[in-house]
Amino acid sequence: MAQLYSSMKPTPMLKDELDIVIPTIRNLDFLEMWRPFFEKYHLIIVQDGDPSRTINIPKGFDYELYNRNDINRILGPKSSCISFKDSACRCFGYMVSKKKYIYTIDDDCFINALEQHIKNLLTPSTPDFFNTLYDPYGDGADFVRGYPFSMREGAITAVSHGLWLNIPDYDAPTQLVKPLERNSRKFYLPLKSLNNEVVLLYVDAVMTIPKGTLFPMCGMNLAFDRELIGPAMYFGLMGDGQPIGRYDDMWAGWCVKVICDHMGWGVKTGLPYIWHSKASNPFVNLRKEYNGIFWQEEAIPFFQSVTLPKECTSVQQCYMELAKLVKEKLGKVDPYFTKLADGMVTWIEAWDELNSPDGAEAKAPKGKDE
Amino acid sequence: MAQLYSSMKPTPMLKDELDIVIPTIRNLDFLEMWRPFFEKYHLIIVQDGDPSRTINIPKGFDYELYNRNDINRILGPKSSCISFKDSACRCFGYMVSKKKYIYTIDDDCFINALEQHIKNLLTPSTPDFFNTLYDPYGDGADFVRGYPFSMREGAITAVSHGLWLNIPDYDAPTQLVKPLERNSRKFYLPLKSLNNEVVLLYVDAVMTIPKGTLFPMCGMNLAFDRELIGPAMYFGLMGDGQPIGRYDDMWAGWCVKVICDHMGWGVKTGLPYIWHSKASNPFVNLRKEYNGIFWQEEAIPFFQSVTLPKECTSVQQCYMELAKLVKEKLGKVDPYFTKLADGMVTWIEAWDELNSPDGAEAKAPKGKDE
Repeated sequence: MAQLYSSMKPTPMLKDELDIVIPTIRNLDFLEMWRPFFEKYHLIIVQDGDPSRTINIPKGFDYELYNRNDINRILGPKSSCISFKDSACRCFGYMVSKKKYIYTIDDDCFINALEQHIKNLLTPSTPDFFNTLYDPYGDGADFVRGYPFSMREGAITAVSHGLWLNIPDYDAPTQLVKPLERNSRKFYLPLKSLNNEVVLLYVDAVMTIPKGTLFPMCGMNLAFDRELIGPAMYFGLMGDGQPIGRYDDMWAGWCVKVICDHMGWGVKTGLPYIWHSKASNPFVNLRKEYNGIFWQEEAIPFFQSVTLPKECTSVQQCYMELAKLVKEKLGKVDPYFTKLADGMVTWIEAWDELNSPDGAEAKAPKGKDE
Repeated sequence: MAQLYSSMKPTPMLKDELDIVIPTIRNLDFLEMWRPFFEKYHLIIVQDGDPSRTINIPKGFDYELYNRNDINRILGPKSSCISFKDSACRCFGYMVSKKKYIYTIDDDCFINALEQHIKNLLTPSTPDFFNTLYDPYGDGADFVRGYPFSMREGAITAVSHGLWLNIPDYDAPTQLVKPLERNSRKFYLPLKSLNNEVVLLYVDAVMTIPKGTLFPMCGMNLAFDRELIGPAMYFGLMGDGQPIGRYDDMWAGWCVKVICDHMGWGVKTGLPYIWHSKASNPFVNLRKEYNGIFWQEEAIPFFQSVTLPKECTSVQQCYMELAKLVKEKLGKVDPYFTKLADGMVTWIEAWDELNSPDGAEAKAPKGKDE
């Protein structure tokens, strides 16, 4: 796969504007495999699980490392809003970053996908009208006949949602019934120089998710404009001590999409792909997802029907309003949602504290920050 | 291109359920190139322009041919709703068909795309929630993690909108500024057996256009369920004697999408691609499109804001209601819309007449109907 993406070069001009956030419980040996890429950027590593465990980070990388003790120290009682023993803990990295853009990636995903994310974020979106030839701002693409001219300026892009090759991001029930499935398409190109061999290809497209439509956001390969949408990118209360896991990115995706729609910003999905090396255990996943499978049937209609008042003109205001509505409407489904709504409020308080002029001092990372 | 699609076989079981509608002013020599495909189906050829001109149809095809005189004879005064000297005339073929499915294709487009259209139409759509891995009903695809289980049954698919290789479907201004553009993506596959050559690929995906989102529908390569959505597939008043052309399919697309959203049916776009052999003249196109370029800026917000009353439970009722609203709201933009609204009403009257048990007799085609 490295070869396939060899033409993708990092974008040096963005070095000072982008942080890479990686949640982990492992040694980060995968950084070594992608050294030429990762060593150009600043990394924020959020260590999950036992804080006394040492995470081995190969030499020569520019990083900050936060474990649970750091999070508790920095946020004090507000650290309750950051999940433990779940990749949801990564959103602490969004909060302590000082950069405009965030790219977050799982520690079992390998590929240089950043250039395409940057392209996605730096070009507009088309949430108000569907372009049948996909992203009209991509190379060699444009608006098709019948696309209203007054809408061709597009909307600001807040989120770039990348996809995955090899292991698709299925829920536990689908994993259980399709244990061998891979996201690869067999496509015969009967060219002589190919000796009629089979080439595995993926869908080469980016598109805007239309206004008013929700989508299942996956946190494995995600980039966003932190200054724009950061305060809504909260991955919820998951994992340790919570009745649910593996819904961190979904939850963030529903909230983010509703707020982007309200603010008139776009969310793109499609390219870039990453190589997802290992499938997680479907039985463990089922235990984590179990409650979510029921709750999402209530949560999604809730998010589909939410209308934010036009008085909400900042992401913080939108998010606080959403927290209020979650407590009101979903609190009836399960007491967990009342707790989650409180977590949402705490998250915003902590975000504002750490991202105020004074708050910057409180961000005292451990590790190496060149 | 023939090779590329050689694995696509016609679907014999559908022979009795599908008509192919082709509008033309030319000799239909292209049928010869695709004889093994076209001779398996019944063709409805709508001859545009001078009815005294003889259209040369290669031997051995099962077809009906209608020219302007036939249309006038069959519809009487109601023939006013069928456009002349514009490919919009094709919708007469939808009306006289006796089959469940329609596939319509331009006479300068070559490819066997039908199998994919049939797959699209026979599998459900997902208008209520976006699946990031595209059509979950396609081969090797599924719903991703977080897709609500209660929505996985999907909605009935009414329309399958195919795309085009080679010449993209641009409006005249875009054609004028991008005279050399082709819809092809250069993608380097650094495989040894490829000798590092460049392969041109297209986007290998089908997706549902979400509920509430309009799209620019192109008539070049389109299939639909005539029994379901046929009465709304009116291509309007275009061409001869009208102040507008090249908006026939756009108009139908806006109406169809609004009605599908109301009825809870899906519209898919993406695969299959056809090979579009020649670009049309951008200067001629600009003359045809000129008024449309202004009017679409009013028409699209109109369609975006239309809500059909829940009393409308059939496509005919929806379409008559839409005609009323077009007259009311768009009549103010230009008197043309009042005339078009009248055409919409006449179209429904003619449709019902010809598709009643008695009306079947009035469908007396010329040519060969085996």
